[in-house]
Amino acid sequence: MEELKQRIREEGIVIDSNILKVDRFLNHQIDPGLMKKIAERFAHTFADTGVSKVLTIESSGIAPALMTGLALNVPVLFARKKKPSTLNEDSLVTNIQSYTKSTNNLVYLEKIMLSADDRILIVDDFLANGEASLGLTRLVEMAGATVAGVCIVIEKSFQLGRSRLDHAGYPVYSLARISSLANNKITFLDD
Amino acid sequence: MEELKQRIREEGIVIDSNILKVDRFLNHQIDPGLMKKIAERFAHTFADTGVSKVLTIESSGIAPALMTGLALNVPVLFARKKKPSTLNEDSLVTNIQSYTKSTNNLVYLEKIMLSADDRILIVDDFLANGEASLGLTRLVEMAGATVAGVCIVIEKSFQLGRSRLDHAGYPVYSLARISSLANNKITFLDD
Repeated sequence: MEELKQRIREEGIVIDSNILKVDRFLNHQIDPGLMKKIAERFAHTFADTGVSKVLTIESSGIAPALMTGLALNVPVLFARKKKPSTLNEDSLVTNIQSYTKSTNNLVYLEKIMLSADDRILIVDDFLANGEASLGLTRLVEMAGATVAGVCIVIEKSFQLGRSRLDHAGYPVYSLARISSLANNKITFLDD
Repeated sequence: MEELKQRIREEGIVIDSNILKVDRFLNHQIDPGLMKKIAERFAHTFADTGVSKVLTIESSGIAPALMTGLALNVPVLFARKKKPSTLNEDSLVTNIQSYTKSTNNLVYLEKIMLSADDRILIVDDFLANGEASLGLTRLVEMAGATVAGVCIVIEKSFQLGRSRLDHAGYPVYSLARISSLANNKITFLDD
């Protein structure tokens, strides 16, 4: 998606060869118009796959997921990183490792929110080593539901996530694929 | 907003006389179409007040805030409950107490995201004792910017938040005002 790549070029900040900061339009400040365009691409790509719900994880995934749900006219679910006081005891739980933060997090989803006939489109802001996306696929499969696909705003193609998701057989659609952040320079796979 | 009140009546679960669970359409599963209608009310109400940005706090505020930013065609900012590894050192920080969770949380906003000529519309899912909303007003004022108003999806009018915000002089617009959750019954202020 050329407009997204242009925004990454103009406003992305390379923190180190693994971390790209895009908090001017994606994960601290959000550009709602850009999110809408991103979501329309996601929705168009998976339009004929019978998606019944969109699933993401708090917090930065919520914006693109919400707009995708709006475009597909289906509900949006976000997995919780903390167990809220109001969460039902009957919940699906999995562990997600964060490489950037070197932490392990249990993430929660109320069991009642997914049923076996659901076809779930997973949406997230970043794909790095795939821990978050794979964690979400586990929650879907614990409920006996089906993963329709995985939509990613920015894929760091030099990390393991993409190949792990491909290998697991999930259809992956990424709007900007970055092949390298080395030497403080953002290079896209199709440059 | 009658449609919202109807959804609260049908899908809201009273946990105790202070806590209402609305995770079927607002803060676990989200109804994107309802969020859009909610946001259009917010945007319409503050249309002529020169709003330059929408501000919320992760995670449940993001959905109504994002749709409000889309309707007003302005960026959306969300304050962070954890300091992200990519957050600039130069940040605005305030402490927000959570009555439901009995915790204190520092929340963060990058200083560079707000300027003195910004007029900020604060959007949040719930108004209880006003800690979150008042914390967001403090962040806005630390930056020398102006609070244009506070938009709330569900106000628990029997708690202190509304009167604290009114007393501080902020225009508050709440779409559903709940006067009581006593005896496992949801009563609205205008019932």
